[in-house]
Order: sequence, then structure tokens, then C-alpha cells
Amino acid sequence: MGMNSNRVESLECRETVLRIPPEEMSAPPQQTEEIHKVCLPPSQTTLQKLKHKLSEVFFPDDPFYRFKNQTWFRKLLLGLQFLFPIFQWGPDYTLALFKSDIVSGLTIASLAIPQGISYAKLANLPPIIGLYSSFVPPLIYSVLGSSRHLAVGPVSIASLVMGSMITEAVSFNEQPTLFLKLAFTATFFAGVFQASLGLLRLGFVIDFLSKATLVGFMAGAAVIVSLQQLKGLLGIIHFTNKMQFIPVMSSVFHHKDEWSWQTIVLGSIFLLFLLGTRHISIKKPKLFWISAAAPLTSVILSTILVFLLRDKVPGISVIGHLPKGINPPSLNMLYFTGPQLALAIKTGIITGILSLTEGIAVGRTFAGLKNYQVDGNKEMMAIGFMNMAGSCSSCYVTTGSFSRSAVNYNAGAQTAVSNVVMSATVLITLLFLMPLFHYTPNFILAAIIITAVIGLIDYQAACRLWKVDKLDFVACVCSFFGVLFISVPLGLAIAVGVSIFKILLHVTRPNTMVLGNISGTQIFQNIDRYREASRVPSFLILAIESPIYFANSTYLQERILRWIREDEERIKATNDSPLKCVILDMTAVTSIDTSGIEAVCEIRKILMQKSLQFVLANPVANVMEKLYKSKALEQFEFNGLYLSVGEAVMDISSLWKRQP
Amino acid sequence: MGMNSNRVESLECRETVLRIPPEEMSAPPQQTEEIHKVCLPPSQTTLQKLKHKLSEVFFPDDPFYRFKNQTWFRKLLLGLQFLFPIFQWGPDYTLALFKSDIVSGLTIASLAIPQGISYAKLANLPPIIGLYSSFVPPLIYSVLGSSRHLAVGPVSIASLVMGSMITEAVSFNEQPTLFLKLAFTATFFAGVFQASLGLLRLGFVIDFLSKATLVGFMAGAAVIVSLQQLKGLLGIIHFTNKMQFIPVMSSVFHHKDEWSWQTIVLGSIFLLFLLGTRHISIKKPKLFWISAAAPLTSVILSTILVFLLRDKVPGISVIGHLPKGINPPSLNMLYFTGPQLALAIKTGIITGILSLTEGIAVGRTFAGLKNYQVDGNKEMMAIGFMNMAGSCSSCYVTTGSFSRSAVNYNAGAQTAVSNVVMSATVLITLLFLMPLFHYTPNFILAAIIITAVIGLIDYQAACRLWKVDKLDFVACVCSFFGVLFISVPLGLAIAVGVSIFKILLHVTRPNTMVLGNISGTQIFQNIDRYREASRVPSFLILAIESPIYFANSTYLQERILRWIREDEERIKATNDSPLKCVILDMTAVTSIDTSGIEAVCEIRKILMQKSLQFVLANPVANVMEKLYKSKALEQFEFNGLYLSVGEAVMDISSLWKRQP
Repeated sequence: MGMNSNRVESLECRETVLRIPPEEMSAPPQQTEEIHKVCLPPSQTTLQKLKHKLSEVFFPDDPFYRFKNQTWFRKLLLGLQFLFPIFQWGPDYTLALFKSDIVSGLTIASLAIPQGISYAKLANLPPIIGLYSSFVPPLIYSVLGSSRHLAVGPVSIASLVMGSMITEAVSFNEQPTLFLKLAFTATFFAGVFQASLGLLRLGFVIDFLSKATLVGFMAGAAVIVSLQQLKGLLGIIHFTNKMQFIPVMSSVFHHKDEWSWQTIVLGSIFLLFLLGTRHISIKKPKLFWISAAAPLTSVILSTILVFLLRDKVPGISVIGHLPKGINPPSLNMLYFTGPQLALAIKTGIITGILSLTEGIAVGRTFAGLKNYQVDGNKEMMAIGFMNMAGSCSSCYVTTGSFSRSAVNYNAGAQTAVSNVVMSATVLITLLFLMPLFHYTPNFILAAIIITAVIGLIDYQAACRLWKVDKLDFVACVCSFFGVLFISVPLGLAIAVGVSIFKILLHVTRPNTMVLGNISGTQIFQNIDRYREASRVPSFLILAIESPIYFANSTYLQERILRWIREDEERIKATNDSPLKCVILDMTAVTSIDTSGIEAVCEIRKILMQKSLQFVLANPVANVMEKLYKSKALEQFEFNGLYLSVGEAVMDISSLWKRQP
Repeated sequence: MGMNSNRVESLECRETVLRIPPEEMSAPPQQTEEIHKVCLPPSQTTLQKLKHKLSEVFFPDDPFYRFKNQTWFRKLLLGLQFLFPIFQWGPDYTLALFKSDIVSGLTIASLAIPQGISYAKLANLPPIIGLYSSFVPPLIYSVLGSSRHLAVGPVSIASLVMGSMITEAVSFNEQPTLFLKLAFTATFFAGVFQASLGLLRLGFVIDFLSKATLVGFMAGAAVIVSLQQLKGLLGIIHFTNKMQFIPVMSSVFHHKDEWSWQTIVLGSIFLLFLLGTRHISIKKPKLFWISAAAPLTSVILSTILVFLLRDKVPGISVIGHLPKGINPPSLNMLYFTGPQLALAIKTGIITGILSLTEGIAVGRTFAGLKNYQVDGNKEMMAIGFMNMAGSCSSCYVTTGSFSRSAVNYNAGAQTAVSNVVMSATVLITLLFLMPLFHYTPNFILAAIIITAVIGLIDYQAACRLWKVDKLDFVACVCSFFGVLFISVPLGLAIAVGVSIFKILLHVTRPNTMVLGNISGTQIFQNIDRYREASRVPSFLILAIESPIYFANSTYLQERILRWIREDEERIKATNDSPLKCVILDMTAVTSIDTSGIEAVCEIRKILMQKSLQFVLANPVANVMEKLYKSKALEQFEFNGLYLSVGEAVMDISSLWKRQP
């Protein structure tokens, strides 16, 4: 130990590696009075660092670890299984599994058919498109997808957003072909966007839609969607195309003359029935099949009712004629030139990101419940390719639906085969049963949509946000009102902005605190929080809880000087021993930039003028490296860097004893 | 000690407060085998927390601390001094100080007059506006400003930006009055914006222009400004209004026929002279007066030369007639309605923020050199009011100029009186000497501008950025090329975006590492960095170097599971003792949000299924609070939370010994 005991050894410290069994650990440590050197991290070239950084950004889960040390044949097989998960579970597929899958497949089909028709209406598309979209995409997903419980098909949020965004530019009633073209093109771009996010391993982009944002967004969207359904439930014919709260409500009350009491009565009865079954299934999860069967039952009942009453009650609007047959190809309807291309791309990206978020979240949830892994980036590619294929076969944006996947899970689905069974059921419907839907009333579709989206309003989650994190709650409220009163994309943008602002605020005004020693230990803790932590006389030990960046370097400089000023005032008032040394605990300073380094040097300079010693404790690897490279370290070379606050206090005070 | 030794005590830990002198600290700690409780922070209401947060955001330097415990008269006096720093230094002003101030004031006046004329030309404004702007604002600053060395007047960057932004919409040649109106209005809004930033204590907004961004931005602006001066140096008459590299260069070469060799020869001689004097002053800082006197000398020499040659060499363009007299009022020229208002506001905000950045940086630099404090928010108010007053007296945006302040400092300025002296000199020039500038050639203005801005190209700073921080360098390069090829505001926006992206990247992909024990101590460190740190058998100790947020919760979850997988593989390969416990060192996890809490609970669930114990070490105050509020803590209540990694290892392994 001595003046240069803690000099920076270039790159490697030469202690030998020792293994100590835990028994020795628990014994009182043999305090050696040895002061340890602060090491630089192992030196790496810029290229190595870049490689490491890139691999952390793009391959954090190290997806190729399975391929290590394998024969080439095994590698090929693993590669096939990696690309097509069906090869993974296919060989082990049994009749018992198939039985479960048939039951769950039929169950979700009974939900998917009425929901498909309803969601297509929500997107202002012909109802048949909803059925087409429940046929092709599930087949493709069952080959490519790695989730075993995802039930694929159209979903409410993406339908709503696509419908509202395209309708702002083109009306389906006036230009049905252009509208369809734009919908398929947007679907295509959604698929391309999703697949490329997966391919480029940029899956973390969807992480920026935080849980808080999504709670608010989904609730806002659910309110908008439910209000929109007043059109069908009240029997209004002339309704606004807009999606905001105010135009929708004014549209409802401006067309009071169009309200049809027959529709209202029947609609309310069925809505109450559906909400009732939903309530039962929530209370008793074992009775999930009640709410699963309710939509199809109501469709059948209401269709029969309206068919029987067709001459007596003329005011009820019905779906009308639907063409028989499977999906027509729609490759020729993709639209790559023209004035609306930008709109199609924008719609595609926004619906793409929203449907990805839902699909990935659903996949992860059920994977978590059954304890298997879903690779986000791979799922994105699966969903992306599914939508690209869908756009060529008259489908619009699809993903894993939360409600249907939950039913699928509860009905005992074991593999993606349940999606195949659902597809087959939809196929039979498309081929033979379409005429039966002629008299299906629009109010029942509205009731089905409301029942489906009402679950998206998660006020309990909002309460939890308020309790745990006020700023998360603000993000949630912003996205709720943004969606409700401004527009869906802007609402989302505001919410993402608030979330990012939250991160920046944390960085801009980080927490700083005074540490004290917990007596009898080498532990130093916040003196405001731990009453057993006490100040070490003549020392001021400060900790910063944040990286030091351009955004906070000025603040931290001022704040640290204020801590010192306040400590000097306290010392004056209490006649404590005078301040001689300021220790900055850098453990939580996980990064520093050039402005931060300047701030640290500046503080050192000011403290030197005040004849105060200034040392850094435990700088992390990359901070150490930057201090070294910027030559700032040279100022700290002697007695300026310690491995821990404890060692700093020990070494400095023993130096004072020797040089009084 | 026992099963519930580390249960969370609600709100306060009841140990008594102890003081230990440093002598005892340096002795081997008496290891008591006592395990300390992890405390919650002292409970605060939402309102208290909000108050604390707001005071940290807006009053980090606690500006009112001087007022504490003072009589009301003293408070009034301090308040006056706070608002008008002149009351602070005024009473102590002496003749000796005044002598220094006269010398420095005259020195900066000799720079300010030619630079004022030149910068006004740079902003496409009449040269006289530059002189007006060197008269009123310095007087106001000397009353309000707290920097003693700031030399106030027009500056190159703000002039360039204002000129280029207004010129894009309005040409001075076609609509001179509208152009002037817009310039004054923009100046007014710049002042309002600056003053409100100061009043609302939002000074930290300018921190988002990081040093790296500014290095690139200033270099880009300097290149653009220098290229623009080719107009004056080559004698070109028809020149582009655009500010990008490509149009400027094509304008230079498209008008080769307008090049005037007389202008080129004379211009080059004077440019070389000015650059030469600059070089001398850089090499020998004591000779600063050479470069300080050079501009005025060259103006005088070149004016005499052109006057003598006026009949023989007709091709040289000169300033021409300048009106005598002090600033005319321009309140009536402010423009609050009309189609260009938005442009004026935008220009005002951007020039406002740029000039603030320069002014504050200059003030802080010289305050640092002379060891006094400059309050950023107060300076903003001073600069803001100065510009608001300026806009009513025919001045355009002014601030503290870097080059002139350096000369002021070197010439021995002691107080803001040097600004008053400069003002007085400018006043005399305005009243009596204006006709002398009639024959001042434009090429000399161009040469002065080039010499002034060339110092903004700080390639050494860029090299340092590359060496220390690659991403800072990228931000720098982005702002350089953004300004050069796109536009000034967009270049700035891109650079700020890159800086923010850097913060987000750090949060999105934080560093995680395995810790090992340094034998004989309770210190745990990164095993990749410290060779003396060794793994503790049966434990995997992980540290996360970042808050856990929505943006990284998925990543961290995957990454931690990968660490565990890799550790299990390592154990299998080396036949080490099997993994039994995972400790997460939360010291650097300075914050957590709802998504982060979910991720932690999810990891715990997965590890429980693997029969691995999972504990958290040293959660910081607000993380602890959120874990507690979200009920996530209940899962960790028994044997799940420790004050330090050392205590966790000790307690858990002693438990294992007792329950084998």
C-alpha cells in the first residue's frame, strides 16, 4: 500500500485466480488492509467492440447456440426446424394431440367465423374478406409459427386502424375497388415490414410500445370501436367515417330520425346475452366454452329470427348476399404506383406494428404459461410472411388474436394443428354455408364486436399503474385520450413520446445522494434511507444514480457543488470535523460521454481550488476506459481511483494519520 | 438471523445511529455475521414526491439558499442583486477596474465594428443593423448579465441561420421592408423564447445540444459561411440565396464570368494578412492584440486603398452609403399577424436556442477560468430581455460572442463596464464616423468573416470524440453533414436525434455481467475485468448496468436466461458444483417501471421452475418502493432481498450448511 497503490495497471491486474468455497465466504473475511487496483477492461479493438455491440443489439439470445458443435447433417436438420417449427413438433405428433387440437380448432372456428365477418365490417371491408382472412393465414402460420396456442385471424385493433386510415382518404361506398386495393397493399406492406423487422432482428422496436402505453391505447381504441358500433346497434344508415369521439357522438345524435327501435330492442337483447356469457366465463374460467359458443349461437338465432320476421319488421339491415367459394387471388390488386401509395405504406407500417405487438404479446403470454420459448424475431418473420401471402389471396392484416388464443388455450389446443382445423372449418363455410348468412343482421355483428373489445378496457391495470408509477400512468392516459380525441397514429405517437420522455427525464435529472457507513461493515448506503448508516467524519461520499451524459452533466456538476456547499454549512452549524475529501461512488454511473468527462474534470478542478481531495470509487469498465482514453484519468492517477468506497475511506484516512 | 432476517421492515429500520471515527474504519471491520435489512425509503405522499421532483427539475442549484435566515431588508437587497447583478459589483467598482475595462472595451470595439458590419451582411441585413446591434444590447446586458467577460453583439452562427431561414421565404432585394420586419420579429421571439426558458427554469433544454453535436454543427456552419464568402472574395454579383454546399458551389462556378481579378487579388492579400495575425495570436496568446487589432486595421487600409483606386479599378464592390445617427425605434416593425408569422417564430426559436447555447457556454467558460458562478437560467433571462429590447431598437439577434469575449478576457476586462465602453465607442462611430465606411470594400468583410469562423472548425475536438466515444463522433459527423448538405435546422434536429438515440440505445441494450468475489474482501466485481475476482461455487451473480424499463425488459429477461444457460453449460463442461442460486445485483438498476417489474417476476417464476433460488441484492430506494407497491416484493419477502451481494452469499450459503 502506498502513494501509487491504486495506480491504473494497464489492462490486466496480475493477481492469481483463487477459488474460495462458500464456507470460507461466510466466515469473517480476513481483512488484509490490501488496497486493490482499479483495472481497465481487457483491451479490444474498435472492430471487436463493434462486433460485440452488434451481437448484443441483434442477437441477444444467441439464437445459433444450438448449432454449435453439431455435425453438418444435424445442423441442416436444426436449420430446417429453426425455419419451419413444424419439423420440430411434427414427428412427435400423436392421435391424442390431434383429438385435443380438433376440439380446440372447432371451438375457435365457431368464434372466428362471426368475429371474422364483424372485424371485416369494422375495417369497412366486405364481410367475406374477414372469412378469407381466417382461412389462408392460419394455414401458413401453422407451418412457420413457433407458438402452439396462437389463434390466427383478423383482430379488432388492426381492423379498426386500417379501416380508419384508409377511409380518411378513400370511401368504400364510392370507390370500392380502390379501397380493396389499398387494403391489400397495406396488408402486403405490413407483412414486408413485419418480416423485415424479424429478418433484421429489429424486434426490439416493438418494445417501445410499453405496457402502459398499450393499456391506454387499447382502452381508447375499444371505446372508439364500441361507439362506432352504435351505428349497427341503433340502425343508423348515414354515419361518419371519422374515428374520433366527437364526430362519432355527434353523428349518433344528428341522425336520431334513423334510429330503428326494432334494431335497438333486438340488438340490446343479444348484446346483454353476449355480455352475460362473457361474465360467466370470466367468473368461472372452466365455463370458457359458454362465451366461446355464444357468438355463433347468437348469429344463428338472430339470423333465424330476422329470416322469420323478414316481412313483418323491414327496418333491420342485414349482411346480404355473400359469394360462395374460396379466396380469389389478389396479387393483381396490389398497388405499387399512384398517389395513394404513401398512404398504403403508412397504413401498412402502423397496422403491421400494432398487429405484431398483439401477436408477439399473445404468443409470449401462452408460451410463458406452458413454459416454452417463443423467439420474437422468428415470430415476426412468420407473421410477416403470413400477411404477405394473405395480401395475395384476398386477406387483410391478420395476427394472433388475444381473445381467440385464450379460448384456444382453454379448449386444450396442443399444437398449431388447431389452426389447421379452424381453417378447414372456415373452408367448408366458404364453400357451402355462405348463403345461410344472407339474413344475418348487422346489429349482431356490432354486438359481437362490442363484447370482444370491451375486455380491452383494463381499468385495473390503469389503477396499478397509478399506484406503482405515476409517469407510466401519464403515458397511459395520454395514449387513451390521444386515440379518443385526436387519432390513432397520433395517439400512439404521443404515448411513445411520453414513454421516451420518461427515460430522458430520468437521465436529465438523476438521483444523487449522500452515503454513510453501516457500522461494522464495508457497506455504504444512503443516509436518508438507512438510519444505521452514518456519515464518515471529514468525508462526503456521494453516489450518482445515472450515466453522466451531455443531458445531465451541467445539472450534476451544479448538484454536486450544492451537496458540498450544504455539507459545509452543516459542518459549520454542528461543529463537525472539517470536510477534507469528496468520494464519488461511480457504481451506478454505467456510462459517460465526452460532456460527462468534462464535468468530472471540472468538479475536480473546483474542489482542488477549495483544497478538497476528490476521488472516484468503483468506476465501471466502460467509464474507466473512457476516462483513460480521454486522458482525464491522468488527473486521478495517484490516490484518485479506488475499487470500492470502503477501500477509499480506509486508504485515505490511514494516509492522513501518517501525514497529519 | 434466520428465515425472516431480511424481511422488509415497513418504512424504517430501527438501528441506532452510530458515529465511527475514520481510525476505526480503517481497522479490519468486526464482522458480526449480522445480516442487514433492506429498508424502504422514508414514506412520502405523492404530493411531497412531486414537489421534490419538481424542485430537482427546476431548482437543482437551490437559487434561493442565499435568502434563508435573512432580514427582510437584506432579502430585498439580495433580491435586487439577484435580478440586477450590477448592484452586486457596482458598489465595489474602483478606478483601477475602470482602467482595465476601458482598455478591454476599446479593444473589443475595434473588433465589434468590423464584425458587426460583416455579420449583418451574413444575415443579408443592411450593414448598419450590425452596428445598431452592437450598441443597445451590450448596454442592457451590462445591467442584467452576471458574466463579467461576455462581449455582447451579433455572432456568426445566429446571423447565418437567421439570414438563411428568412431568405428562403423572402428576398431582401425584392422586399427589404418585409425582410427587416421578419428579422426584428424573429429577434423579438428569440428574446421571448430565451427569457421564458430562463423564467420557467427550463435551461436544461439547451443541454440537449451536446458538445459533440455542437462541434459538428459549428464546423458545418463555418464551412458554409466561408463558402458563402466566396461571393465577396471573388466579386460575384449574382449569388444563390441557398445555404447548402451544392447550390453554393454550383453558384460559384456558374458565375465565373463575374469573377473580378482585382477583388480576388486584394481579397486574398487581406485574407492572408488576417489569417496570419490569427495564427500569431494562437501561437503566442500574449500577442492576442495583434489579431484583435487586425480587422479594424484591414478595414481602414482597404478602405483607403479602394478610395485611392476608386477611378482606376472600378470592379470592386463597396458598402456604399450608411446613414448617420443612433438606432431608430423599430417597435412598429414587429409583425404579429400575417402569413410569415410562423416563419418568424420558427426562426426566432432556432436562432434563440443557438445564440443561447453560445452565450451560456461562453459565460460558463470564462466564469470557470476566473472561478465565479454564472447562473444559466438567469443568463437566459438577461440575454432574452436584451434581445426583446434589441428588437424594438433596430437590432437583430445578439449574444455573447466567443471570439470577442476571448479578446475581452485577454485584454483584462474586469466587469461588464467593458461592454459599456464598447457601446460608447460604437455610439461615436454611429454618430460621426459612418461616412468613412462608404468605400469599405465587401471583400474585406468576407475576409473578416472567414477569419472569424475558421476557428469554429475544431477538428482536434472531433479527433478526441473519435478516440473517446464513437457514437458521439457519429452525432458530430451527422450534424456536420446535415448542416452542410440538408439545412441548418434539419442538421441540428438530426444531431439531437442521434444524441437521444444514443441514450436510448444505452437503455435498450444495457450491459450485463457476471460478478465474482475478490478473495479476502466483500467486494464483488466483473470476472471478465478483474482476474482476481473468482466465481463463487453454486452461485451465479449477475449485475445489470441500467434501469429496467419497457424498452429493455424483454432483452434483459432473455439475456439473464442466456447467462444462466451458459453457466449451466460451463458447469457441465467443467464438473463444477451445480448452480443453486442466482443473485441479481441491483445497485446500478437505478429505476424500474411496470414492465421491468413484470420481467423480474417472470424471471423469478422461470427460475423457480428450474428449482433455482433467485434473490435481489441492494435494490435502490425507488426500485424498492416500486417493488413494494406492485406487491412484487411479497414474492421476495423471505430470503429474497439482501443489502449487499456479500451478505446474500454469506447468508444463503450458511443456510445451505444448516439444511444440506
